[in-house]
Amino acid sequence: MSSSTEKIEIIRLQGETCETIEDEVTVEKPFTIHVNEEEFITLLCSGEGVEHLMVGFLASEGLIGSIEDILSIRIEHEEGRGYIEVSEGVLTKKKAHGKRTLTSGCGKGTVFYDVLDSLTAKPLNASFKIDSGKILELSKQFNDESVVFKTTGGVHACALCDEREMLLFHEDIGRHNALDKVIGNALQNKLKIQGKWLLTSGRISSEILIKAAKQGIAMIVSRSAPTKLAIQLAEQMNVTMVGFARGKRMNIYSGAERISCPCKE
Amino acid sequence: MSSSTEKIEIIRLQGETCETIEDEVTVEKPFTIHVNEEEFITLLCSGEGVEHLMVGFLASEGLIGSIEDILSIRIEHEEGRGYIEVSEGVLTKKKAHGKRTLTSGCGKGTVFYDVLDSLTAKPLNASFKIDSGKILELSKQFNDESVVFKTTGGVHACALCDEREMLLFHEDIGRHNALDKVIGNALQNKLKIQGKWLLTSGRISSEILIKAAKQGIAMIVSRSAPTKLAIQLAEQMNVTMVGFARGKRMNIYSGAERISCPCKE
Repeated sequence: MSSSTEKIEIIRLQGETCETIEDEVTVEKPFTIHVNEEEFITLLCSGEGVEHLMVGFLASEGLIGSIEDILSIRIEHEEGRGYIEVSEGVLTKKKAHGKRTLTSGCGKGTVFYDVLDSLTAKPLNASFKIDSGKILELSKQFNDESVVFKTTGGVHACALCDEREMLLFHEDIGRHNALDKVIGNALQNKLKIQGKWLLTSGRISSEILIKAAKQGIAMIVSRSAPTKLAIQLAEQMNVTMVGFARGKRMNIYSGAERISCPCKE
Repeated sequence: MSSSTEKIEIIRLQGETCETIEDEVTVEKPFTIHVNEEEFITLLCSGEGVEHLMVGFLASEGLIGSIEDILSIRIEHEEGRGYIEVSEGVLTKKKAHGKRTLTSGCGKGTVFYDVLDSLTAKPLNASFKIDSGKILELSKQFNDESVVFKTTGGVHACALCDEREMLLFHEDIGRHNALDKVIGNALQNKLKIQGKWLLTSGRISSEILIKAAKQGIAMIVSRSAPTKLAIQLAEQMNVTMVGFARGKRMNIYSGAERISCPCKE
């Protein structure tokens, strides 16, 4: 087992049987980069190879041009923090160049910290119950719907569903965009999102989970995998999370009480 | 054909044959959101459903709470621009809340505009030549290497290669992070990146292409799909781009002169 995975208990449903098994999921951790003691950005990553990640990220952002620009590096693994010292000349040059310096407000702002605080306070209490067969039926319909994916392989899809059917369906090159389109469409057409559930083609990261939970979505189903952090947040928020929903099987990571499966009947 | 796909000519290599065929690829377009006439952020998206995208993005960012917060919406489809007018009260409330307002410098800054200008000026002139069989051999090795992916399905991998072998290999939950780790590792170990090539498990978007090209990478191979914009940039930058490299087949989207394939022998 790699250190970037963790074992957790899940419910695996396959055909007519479901069982509680141990499964491995990917770890997702916030890592905050400080440049010359100033907070620069927080990345969500696997928690491994963070020193390379910090150097590579700053090179990609154009802040450092070569390894000689770096005076020192310090990593606090447990706390998920990295400190990099670059010569003042590098920073000044960069500031003079202007235009695309990332401020600390930006990276942090995109989603992570304050949402975490604000959300954990109010778990979702949607009490719907849905049949596992219905989830798989709509998952299949969802896959069939995705014409662009089938012709190009280059997109993600996202759909809003209730207990009976798919209500909205959108595609985009990005997982986040596809979800934002669904949210925007629902808002514009005054369709209540609270208590509905989502189908997504993409992996379920903490950012996707938070974005959905903020709108009151009570269940997320993906044909792909969730991260450990997303599962933790789903548990805290009382969101039902299902991964690897394909054919006749699915993994239930949290909130199983919302799903009625064959073996409970 | 959906309006979010376009037809282009590619070279498809399959076993011992290769042929020029027409294929559909996903469109990727910049879409700039203006809030109350002020530039807010540029998103890279499919170009479809941009009105829903704009509303949903601003709702996800917490700028608008309900549809009543919106006074007017105007979309300039051709120019890829959206204008949304919200009541000053909404903006003021938001500013008072502070903390995570996205500045226009942020979204634009992450990658897109200035890179485009700066890059198109200096195409890569790396003149290596690599056998298609070697690409597929290393692609297979790359897939075998990805242990976390196999156990969890939740990560992306990226590797730096030369004409003979894989030199660096990293995984992360994000495509960008995996590439940044490779770049950081190469910088820290003084491994020349220029003229090397990349294997990636993820889709090739314009951002990934630009990030790689900025470091002088001359070829990108993915088991997944590229976007139309990434292909255009690859052509301009003289980067060789290969997608759907799986088993005995691959699609060559640009820079085919760097690949020797069976039918040319």
